[in-house]
Amino acid sequence: MKKGSNVSLSVIKRLPKYYRYLEAINEKGIVRVSSKELSQITGLTASQIRQDLNHYGCFGQQGYGYNVKELMQELAKIIGVNKEYSMIIIGFGNIGHALFQYSGFKTLDYNVKAVFDKNNEEVSTGKLKVLSTDDLKEYLEKNEIDIGIITTPKEGAQEVCDILCEGGIKGIWNFAPVDLKTKNNVVIENVHLDESLFTLTYFINTPEDFIF
Amino acid sequence: MKKGSNVSLSVIKRLPKYYRYLEAINEKGIVRVSSKELSQITGLTASQIRQDLNHYGCFGQQGYGYNVKELMQELAKIIGVNKEYSMIIIGFGNIGHALFQYSGFKTLDYNVKAVFDKNNEEVSTGKLKVLSTDDLKEYLEKNEIDIGIITTPKEGAQEVCDILCEGGIKGIWNFAPVDLKTKNNVVIENVHLDESLFTLTYFINTPEDFIF
Repeated sequence: MKKGSNVSLSVIKRLPKYYRYLEAINEKGIVRVSSKELSQITGLTASQIRQDLNHYGCFGQQGYGYNVKELMQELAKIIGVNKEYSMIIIGFGNIGHALFQYSGFKTLDYNVKAVFDKNNEEVSTGKLKVLSTDDLKEYLEKNEIDIGIITTPKEGAQEVCDILCEGGIKGIWNFAPVDLKTKNNVVIENVHLDESLFTLTYFINTPEDFIF
Repeated sequence: MKKGSNVSLSVIKRLPKYYRYLEAINEKGIVRVSSKELSQITGLTASQIRQDLNHYGCFGQQGYGYNVKELMQELAKIIGVNKEYSMIIIGFGNIGHALFQYSGFKTLDYNVKAVFDKNNEEVSTGKLKVLSTDDLKEYLEKNEIDIGIITTPKEGAQEVCDILCEGGIKGIWNFAPVDLKTKNNVVIENVHLDESLFTLTYFINTPEDFIF
């Protein structure tokens, strides 16, 4: 199947959501689902769902809908959930700790290989020895890592990002409250907690703009 | 100033970003900024930025641009950063711990009043006594809380959400990997870590869809 170039970000962002819903109904033993039923669960329109999935050649069958397990497996391939990723965490503060111990990714082989911190002598994971951020470059020369998780303060985050991009990493999951510039075709996904909380406070103050 | 009803979610989501950038250039002592300069910093087009801000009556002055401090204060009001919010955390696992100790919101009075957990006898914040989730309803009858932060596992998250919505809360910041239904005009903002990581793995596998 051809993966869709020029697919909009909003379509891409909905795929993991579909995957999550399919996983939930698959767990209930449901074998097939129509786009109308998916619409009732997700709150998106049936036509929207069909369009999104059509981008990737996932066509439901007229009068049958989608086979839950097949669609799930197809989406897993597209999202890349069915692979193993080696990861490292840089910055072992509160969020770094939480992500190190995170157990929410049951379908992903969430595999943290090493943890780095500027003050590595002062923190401990309990399992892995925390390495010094000064040794990050050398570590990447010796180890093949797919994903770098940046949980440093905003100061220094770009420097870490540069080292990761030059060290052969494929993607960065950034939690530092700053927009980073990547190079060497390294992709990036941001979790900006400040922006998320401020979106919430916006809606608290302007609930008329919120779509219930 | 009239706050803009029917403003699209993507505009709203950009406001905290503008605020963050203004904060950074204000810290550098810069007094005024043009939409063109903001464009260079944010990567958005100048026309996009002007349109976004116009929604809220924030007009720059021809040939002068925006006064940094004024625009920042205006945005702070719109986003609601300049207010105090009382918050509670429900679910004191890894993410709950991280958010309790989070210090990234320097401009927001980030004020966690209480922490709840099903196994409240087994966990400790070090500062506040962790309360039992069974007592959440009663707590909300006695205390006025603005924001409920849900960091429980997905099982039970909707039940917590219902209690919050009936307990007079204004907004929910949800970290449980599930889409919750609110009522009583309670607004909600989700941080779905699974979806975020899967967006990253999608782009690692389909970098041609990523906008560098």
